[in-house]
Amino acid sequence: MEFIKILKFDEKGLIPAVIQDYRDGQVLMVAWMNGESIRKSLKTGRTCFWSRSRKEFWIKGERSGNIQLIKEILFDCDADTLLIKVKQVGGACHTGYRSCFHIKVNKNGNSKITGKRVFDPKKIYSQKELK
Amino acid sequence: MEFIKILKFDEKGLIPAVIQDYRDGQVLMVAWMNGESIRKSLKTGRTCFWSRSRKEFWIKGERSGNIQLIKEILFDCDADTLLIKVKQVGGACHTGYRSCFHIKVNKNGNSKITGKRVFDPKKIYSQKELK
Repeated sequence: MEFIKILKFDEKGLIPAVIQDYRDGQVLMVAWMNGESIRKSLKTGRTCFWSRSRKEFWIKGERSGNIQLIKEILFDCDADTLLIKVKQVGGACHTGYRSCFHIKVNKNGNSKITGKRVFDPKKIYSQKELK
Repeated sequence: MEFIKILKFDEKGLIPAVIQDYRDGQVLMVAWMNGESIRKSLKTGRTCFWSRSRKEFWIKGERSGNIQLIKEILFDCDADTLLIKVKQVGGACHTGYRSCFHIKVNKNGNSKITGKRVFDPKKIYSQKELK
């Protein structure tokens, strides 16, 4: 059976996708897909998500050039989460970091940014988008 | 500021947590937490989730012994997803696999199980639970 028919989408028709670098295993981001964005991703070989805030398709890297070339797609035992291994061009995070997961929790319960920026987000996004 | 106060929980008071092996980077599972399960996890050093289906706290490995010792906690730029790096005892998946993400999508759009079982789930869970 086609795998999209096995997947369990939530009440909004969405499923979370963990995006992982296929070479070093770094978790780059988590975003949401619907059936149509999965089909677009399969067709193009690049990740396409559904933006819950903007309520529109979001082709990753369309503006920044930081596309994600799909190398492997897996899903979990409950069929309610995707794991997509990609070749990441540039950085995955709109704030300029390679991974969106660049904020680390300290032992005292506070947090701090870890890692270095790999691109300057101000050259791509407006101030409003970076808030 | 305490990181839990920064996090953006969804309309149900939940946040997804990606669980990753701290040594080899394998993504083991994705589960959901609320504020209280995060506090329990911090207190014990082991992952504790909120079961959306059973509507109760779910201490990972409580029955199977397959606990997850927390090594590092990160969150993403939107503060709406956690990434928790753990030392996984045994397998993370209730079906006996090391990772819940053991179903791979083929090029034809079908899927197949990949990997080997690391424990026998029938020795721990009932038939009903394994469905």
